[in-house]
Amino acid sequence: MAKYIDLSYTIENGLPTHPYDDELKLYQNRFLDKHKYNDSRLETGMHVGTHIDAVSHLMDSNVLIKDYPIDKFIGNGCLLDVREQNIITMQEEYIDIVEENDIVLLYTGFDKQFGSKEYFTNHPIVEKQLAQFFVNKRIKMVGIDLPSPDKYPFEIHKILFEKDILIIENMKNLGSLLNIDRFEIIALPLKIKAEASPVRVVAKV
Amino acid sequence: MAKYIDLSYTIENGLPTHPYDDELKLYQNRFLDKHKYNDSRLETGMHVGTHIDAVSHLMDSNVLIKDYPIDKFIGNGCLLDVREQNIITMQEEYIDIVEENDIVLLYTGFDKQFGSKEYFTNHPIVEKQLAQFFVNKRIKMVGIDLPSPDKYPFEIHKILFEKDILIIENMKNLGSLLNIDRFEIIALPLKIKAEASPVRVVAKV
Repeated sequence: MAKYIDLSYTIENGLPTHPYDDELKLYQNRFLDKHKYNDSRLETGMHVGTHIDAVSHLMDSNVLIKDYPIDKFIGNGCLLDVREQNIITMQEEYIDIVEENDIVLLYTGFDKQFGSKEYFTNHPIVEKQLAQFFVNKRIKMVGIDLPSPDKYPFEIHKILFEKDILIIENMKNLGSLLNIDRFEIIALPLKIKAEASPVRVVAKV
Repeated sequence: MAKYIDLSYTIENGLPTHPYDDELKLYQNRFLDKHKYNDSRLETGMHVGTHIDAVSHLMDSNVLIKDYPIDKFIGNGCLLDVREQNIITMQEEYIDIVEENDIVLLYTGFDKQFGSKEYFTNHPIVEKQLAQFFVNKRIKMVGIDLPSPDKYPFEIHKILFEKDILIIENMKNLGSLLNIDRFEIIALPLKIKAEASPVRVVAKV
């Protein structure tokens, strides 16, 4: 039997958002006793909570998140333990660990800060050499337990996007994958006409 | 290599909604030239487009869509061809086709009507005996290319919900699964504090 591990934040009213972003609202507006059914309404940007950025988030591109083949979002997972690094750097050992078409997860442990202002404004960043390594390896996606792999002007995003490597941001619970040899990542975004999508990400162990 | 087939509607501004529901709005509100990044904002009820109903949609229950184990949403798919039936009835042959823990898809072909008023107001419905059969078989979910398996007072919903069988509504493209012997359904909803969630549903063939 497969076991699944959830790597996503719960979407709820007031979920912490980046200072650049508008707030997420989630509220019930149909009620069983009055309307005969319950319904909730969600108002949110695409870059809130656990989500996947498509290339058009930061590039002048027409490619939306709905346009990628489904197998972009499902693949072998590969966890890199990058805790205790303010600048996440390339390590020799990654050459043997990372394979083509992997979905590479960078485990910083910084999700502990989720909910603080620090989480969005003072997070670790990825250095160019590591992003270039991912490009050379032709991985499918990078996932991180951070709001972003970089800050303005978003050079790391752009290095990855130029080669169609997408980014899963605001993951959580990556430490639960330590010491697990093989797992698959399933991270299907909504089929939405936008430059990103909220996503439920799970590891299949 | 696995092949994936998409069974979901594209979420876009003005996506047709049930007359009971408020409209879906999707609009860009951050622009690369002005804000240095693109972002879109989505405003929608949870029962628009392809989505999964949790029990609390129609029952007095605290169980939200985020509360189900992940393996509720991934499982062996089973397609029943129920075209040309205004009332979708139990057939003897289903006894041998449907297995415990299946995700059973009812292919009506009625998604051809999506976009017309008829789609929401004059659709086929499932009869009680078939719903009871699904309960007895202990399947995980029922998926349909209809807005609902029933109409008010939603008896079919309630028969299924009482036994924790969830419902995927507004699927499309189920005909693409005819003549495929074995496939898996992946239908992970958002991890959202609500009685339902929009979902990307795919078949892995």
